[in-house]
Amino acid sequence: MSGSESVFLKAVRREPTPCTPIWLMRQAGRYLPEYRAMRARHSFLELCRNPDAAAEVTLQPVERLGVDAAILFADILLLLEPLGVGLEFAKGEGPVIHRPVRTAADVARLAPIDVDAAVPFVFETVRRARRALAGRVPLIGFAGAPFTVASYLVEGGASREFLHTKRLMYDEPEAWHRLMDLLADATARYLNGQIAAGAEAVQLFDSWVGALGPDDYRAYVLPHSRAVMKAVTGAPVIHFGTGTAALLPLMREAGGEVIGLDWRVDLDAGWRAVGLDVAVQGNLDPAVLLASPAIIRERARAVLERAAGRPGHVFNLGHGVHQATPVEHVKALVDIVHELSAR
Amino acid sequence: MSGSESVFLKAVRREPTPCTPIWLMRQAGRYLPEYRAMRARHSFLELCRNPDAAAEVTLQPVERLGVDAAILFADILLLLEPLGVGLEFAKGEGPVIHRPVRTAADVARLAPIDVDAAVPFVFETVRRARRALAGRVPLIGFAGAPFTVASYLVEGGASREFLHTKRLMYDEPEAWHRLMDLLADATARYLNGQIAAGAEAVQLFDSWVGALGPDDYRAYVLPHSRAVMKAVTGAPVIHFGTGTAALLPLMREAGGEVIGLDWRVDLDAGWRAVGLDVAVQGNLDPAVLLASPAIIRERARAVLERAAGRPGHVFNLGHGVHQATPVEHVKALVDIVHELSAR
Repeated sequence: MSGSESVFLKAVRREPTPCTPIWLMRQAGRYLPEYRAMRARHSFLELCRNPDAAAEVTLQPVERLGVDAAILFADILLLLEPLGVGLEFAKGEGPVIHRPVRTAADVARLAPIDVDAAVPFVFETVRRARRALAGRVPLIGFAGAPFTVASYLVEGGASREFLHTKRLMYDEPEAWHRLMDLLADATARYLNGQIAAGAEAVQLFDSWVGALGPDDYRAYVLPHSRAVMKAVTGAPVIHFGTGTAALLPLMREAGGEVIGLDWRVDLDAGWRAVGLDVAVQGNLDPAVLLASPAIIRERARAVLERAAGRPGHVFNLGHGVHQATPVEHVKALVDIVHELSAR
Repeated sequence: MSGSESVFLKAVRREPTPCTPIWLMRQAGRYLPEYRAMRARHSFLELCRNPDAAAEVTLQPVERLGVDAAILFADILLLLEPLGVGLEFAKGEGPVIHRPVRTAADVARLAPIDVDAAVPFVFETVRRARRALAGRVPLIGFAGAPFTVASYLVEGGASREFLHTKRLMYDEPEAWHRLMDLLADATARYLNGQIAAGAEAVQLFDSWVGALGPDDYRAYVLPHSRAVMKAVTGAPVIHFGTGTAALLPLMREAGGEVIGLDWRVDLDAGWRAVGLDVAVQGNLDPAVLLASPAIIRERARAVLERAAGRPGHVFNLGHGVHQATPVEHVKALVDIVHELSAR
């Protein structure tokens, strides 16, 4: 059920629901045979740029799993294409940026991102997916948060240590803030465009922000994430990160109607850290989905018990579904959460 | 000054010191030109197995930097060689284990580790390094904690997601605990052997334990880490991990005279989380050492201010020195900490 009556949107608003809603990050992905069949015919970027195909992928987990929300099929780096930094989705390697942005001069060369020109296909995917969902469940849009997107731009791809990113932050703070301003501005317009096209909630992925300590988060990230969330209107924002146990109060301060928690913090402790007056999303370890269904049941129950039936819990993993996950385990989790949380 | 009068050992005992002692994880490593000169002539394993060379490397940062402790040059995986799992230190890749231990049957095939036969060269390195130090500063020995060592054994090398490790934990808990028992037993004998050979403190590296949530830590790790620390006698233990913001009270419960904190938690908040009645070590982000000396000074000062001059703080990074770090920045940090903390 879409619109304001859906269990997902009610939970986001912290209203009582008949059961705890569940959706899963990367629920449209490689663990699904029907997704792999699409990918056999199209590259990742081709899929993203083809609104019919991307809308189809967006709906696959809704059909297969019975999740309570769909999430747009896209990538957090699509917005970077017009920057001319040589973005490539290399096979098996994840994204590569061939001309990383590492100095004040590199930052100065960046032109503002013309969002409408950059990602018209994303907005079209949102429109088609929303239409195809036909009110069954709400559609979630998303974008990368400024820090996480900046980290790819500066490192040139995925990173463990974020040394270039931190060096730019520490040694060239003006350039850093200029880069973050540019990204925050584009991100807000991108999310508002998705909402205008039909997204009923949006998630801001600050996936790698847990690499920072609280002082760095406060100085270099918080103002920009807050700027994004202040500028987004018309739909609630889910503010997500991993490894954020010590950052949670600051993430709350930055904004979001829902704060994402990963499994490295107990759900009840995490909820207290962000405040019981905000909704939370999480927080099963995705690795649990590779264990037996009996274990999945036991661990899902533990997460639900820590939520204590309090309105405002959206069940999810602490990060995306891993591609090695058996699809029947994912289906089992959705059913288990609905069954155990039925009120 | 070695022995009980050293600033390092006094801080470990939470006694007042004239200044805050500092040593750095991976202080003997690739960022040092004199280390790179040694590595040009010897492979990593050759260096570890050659007590004269390893003792020389152990002393290099003491001569160059004026740190308040030396740490044994060795590797946490050396102890695994007798298991016959095909351990190799591959160039540029880090350690590889060619025959990973992933099932109950794999675990059942493992024979207990004969520590004295496995690493006589480590004990000899400790003896020679201690002699060469001649009482200037204390010598720290170390070992990998059972979880972190097990994660290499099960994954076959470094990992981001630890999926095989968690699957073994969840689906075959008896095999997991048998593996952890075997490692805990060998680790305790290894550390006691280093202490007998002259190590004046030891660090237990549970570097990757932050991949787990608190429930998993309590069930699958804590009993084994505690067993190691209970069995170690004659020298204080520094209990170290990264990404542990939500695990700190449990790490304290597991044991250690000093608890290591990484930069993802504020030092004062981390110290309160482990309890003010235990010493702490940390917690500057190693990335700060790649920034300018003015930034290094500012950030070192912030760490010292959070320690508030309370006895029981050993200054360190939150993880090892990165190989791209300018050696003069490392030297500057040591001097800055001594200067700013002079009482």
